[in-house]
Amino acid sequence: MNYKMVAYLIGRIMVIMALLTCLPLLVAIINHENTVTGFLLAIACQLVLGFAFSVKKPKHSELYAKEGFVIVALVWIFTSLFGALPFYLSREIPSFIDAFFETVSGFTTTGATILTDIEKLCLSSLFWRSFTHWIGGMGVLVFVLAVLPKSHASQSIHLMRAEVPGPQVGKLVSRMRSTARILYGIYIVLTLLEVVCLRIAGMSWFDSLLHSFSTAGTGGFSTKNASIAAYGSVAIDAIITIFMILFGVNFTLFYLILTGRVLQALKSEELRWFLGIIVVAAVIITLNISSQYASFLEAFRYAVFQVSSIITTTGFITADYGQWPLLSQSILILLMFFGAMAGSTGGGIKISRVVILFKTVFHEMRHQLRPRSVSSLKLEGKAVDEKTYLGVMSYMSMYVFIYVISMLLVSLNNLSFASTFTAVGTCLNNVGPGLEAVGPVSNFASLSGFSKLVLSVDMLAGRLEFLPIITLFSLSTWKRR
Amino acid sequence: MNYKMVAYLIGRIMVIMALLTCLPLLVAIINHENTVTGFLLAIACQLVLGFAFSVKKPKHSELYAKEGFVIVALVWIFTSLFGALPFYLSREIPSFIDAFFETVSGFTTTGATILTDIEKLCLSSLFWRSFTHWIGGMGVLVFVLAVLPKSHASQSIHLMRAEVPGPQVGKLVSRMRSTARILYGIYIVLTLLEVVCLRIAGMSWFDSLLHSFSTAGTGGFSTKNASIAAYGSVAIDAIITIFMILFGVNFTLFYLILTGRVLQALKSEELRWFLGIIVVAAVIITLNISSQYASFLEAFRYAVFQVSSIITTTGFITADYGQWPLLSQSILILLMFFGAMAGSTGGGIKISRVVILFKTVFHEMRHQLRPRSVSSLKLEGKAVDEKTYLGVMSYMSMYVFIYVISMLLVSLNNLSFASTFTAVGTCLNNVGPGLEAVGPVSNFASLSGFSKLVLSVDMLAGRLEFLPIITLFSLSTWKRR
Repeated sequence: MNYKMVAYLIGRIMVIMALLTCLPLLVAIINHENTVTGFLLAIACQLVLGFAFSVKKPKHSELYAKEGFVIVALVWIFTSLFGALPFYLSREIPSFIDAFFETVSGFTTTGATILTDIEKLCLSSLFWRSFTHWIGGMGVLVFVLAVLPKSHASQSIHLMRAEVPGPQVGKLVSRMRSTARILYGIYIVLTLLEVVCLRIAGMSWFDSLLHSFSTAGTGGFSTKNASIAAYGSVAIDAIITIFMILFGVNFTLFYLILTGRVLQALKSEELRWFLGIIVVAAVIITLNISSQYASFLEAFRYAVFQVSSIITTTGFITADYGQWPLLSQSILILLMFFGAMAGSTGGGIKISRVVILFKTVFHEMRHQLRPRSVSSLKLEGKAVDEKTYLGVMSYMSMYVFIYVISMLLVSLNNLSFASTFTAVGTCLNNVGPGLEAVGPVSNFASLSGFSKLVLSVDMLAGRLEFLPIITLFSLSTWKRR
Repeated sequence: MNYKMVAYLIGRIMVIMALLTCLPLLVAIINHENTVTGFLLAIACQLVLGFAFSVKKPKHSELYAKEGFVIVALVWIFTSLFGALPFYLSREIPSFIDAFFETVSGFTTTGATILTDIEKLCLSSLFWRSFTHWIGGMGVLVFVLAVLPKSHASQSIHLMRAEVPGPQVGKLVSRMRSTARILYGIYIVLTLLEVVCLRIAGMSWFDSLLHSFSTAGTGGFSTKNASIAAYGSVAIDAIITIFMILFGVNFTLFYLILTGRVLQALKSEELRWFLGIIVVAAVIITLNISSQYASFLEAFRYAVFQVSSIITTTGFITADYGQWPLLSQSILILLMFFGAMAGSTGGGIKISRVVILFKTVFHEMRHQLRPRSVSSLKLEGKAVDEKTYLGVMSYMSMYVFIYVISMLLVSLNNLSFASTFTAVGTCLNNVGPGLEAVGPVSNFASLSGFSKLVLSVDMLAGRLEFLPIITLFSLSTWKRR
């Protein structure tokens, strides 16, 4: 293990995080809020750690997968620890575990909250919660890549691979620095576009900005206890629905559209599945819940919002789906696992993996019925190579493994089965709300500290697609060779 | 598709099923019960169908996988349809769907019941319920192979493969006819041994026989509403615990022991995992529930019974685990998915598959951390070949696929999430009891007819490990070529 290089890169990233934390500090100062100390301390810690670690550039700059995983895991954990300070020191969240949970939930774009009254928070805390979504959505490291000196960039493929979700690191990603800049450009433009739309629809500038941050990161933190339902506006529902779906799309497709290859983008098989699933789910739920609403159109409004919110793993709420019939709830739980497209800011298993798993069923059947037929499992018109296929299967094995362990640990909390099952599911998939005790109109406040820690690890594991977190917990990582 | 050969073989099996049905008929006649008509009609139907189909031996006796799947699926469905007649015609189960569900639950060795008062049933019905477990446990077809003329046996590998559970058809199985006889011999001897033990422990001969049938098939139907709890006997609990575990063991190991290769049998990695999981789970649950019982030993008695009952997918009950802390419930639910060893009469995913999935996690990690290291995933000391590995992954994909579809369909019933989730789980894994509405002291009576049909299909799909049932539902199977 190249400890020096690990420390050096962590240091560089910490400095950048310190700079990013100046923004909420500014909000706190302008509004004379008591979070100032917390933000200052967080910035100080990050700067000290940052400069101490990165003062000397190591001679050997080789990075292998193991180092990449360790860097990514540690950066996310440090960032969450420091990020929790403003909440904790201002006593807005008096328990440090709670503050840590809230910050992890922010950075991992989960959106699960331990707050029982969000509206009591000061403006800078609200800003910080949503801003963590926005930072976490695109990934701290992708940002770092965009600003890193060129000489390091070639080493960074391992970092990128560890942080960017999806079964394959696309071609686009291999041209690292320029790609990172393009991706961030798209991210920023779409966010600004949403801010303007929400403002026009009647939201305040502040709320528009914060909800746009949350939408962009597919996070789900709101400034209101009732989430988006608090506005009761069809226009706002519609705008957020559209932007949630946009941020659930693979950013590579936007790049294709920007460079004039619109048709190629629209041909994406994953995109078609993604949109197809949204339409089918929204229609079924609309039919299923229509008796609970005044009109068919009203039912559709809530159905399509909730479907988009859950499949993109955002987690905004406009209707208490805990009151819907079980079929609708089951569909939403299922979509929670599906997640958004690979290469988007969304979490979950990702549509492309789900499609590969789905196709495996029929591929295997065809193979069993006609053993001599030669056919291959295709995605995006190309045969899925063995490496990708085995990668999906390992991912799923890890997924189930972590799910089971977490489920057993959170069971110690002795909530209901549905609460426990969906609490783990919603955190591992970075969604936010689950069912019953952690349902859409509830929160994670009542859970034990231990459960909150387990779920924090789940959120990190889910966001980073397991390997970084498993590597960190693996003894062999730390053995001197 | 070789329709003639399919019909011929189904016919042969129907005749044998008719002979087997004479046993409960005898019980009904001796006790002057009103199930006589039902049994006679079932026998008549089977004989008519049997002779009509098998009167002419087809010239071409080739059988491919597709035919094998179709035969197996149809035999199990016909058998369940005819087997439901005695329950239905005697009005002991007035709804035909209920009678069908109960019979499918019997043959698939699930043990889920729609009966609210089992003790009201007449003796021949009780006998028939448990006897279906016993027939289904070993598989109708293995029995048929044992009595089939030698010339057909060579064609039967496809049948065997379709009905015998587990990731691999062991070497033992390739010597078909003699193997089938040995397996049945072991099955019968173990069953008789349990009958004698239970009789000595104080059960009546009748109850001893029926509970031994249920244990042998890892089914779980009892003659008492309170299941094994009704006897309140430590000795009976202990005997049944031991025999449940024995019937959850791969029968090949008994064969090895019989032929003097005891050490080789004890070296089985799957066996060690199986027993290890039982011990660990029983200890954790004992600690978890000890405060609810008078002594530590009493807690252990109920814990080890319930763990053995659920992991072997038998489903007998001595304690209402619905009252246990959630950790214990979660462990039991997990074991429900694990299931017993491959090549046993138990259901579930099977320990060997679970171990392969579990090892995949660490194998993948090692591979990611040291990409150049050459290591292979091993089971039973040998590298798992790619075909087996991919087979396990396809199995899991099919498993999840059917689980999801069933879950959505049963959601229409609008029970609680935990009830719906475990109802599908307990049926697909052929266990019996689940949680809440389908919990250990409840039953499946309150479900809609549609849910019962879906769950019946799940029980069949789970018992036959998906491919036969999927093949039957696949349009392309029936296309003329």
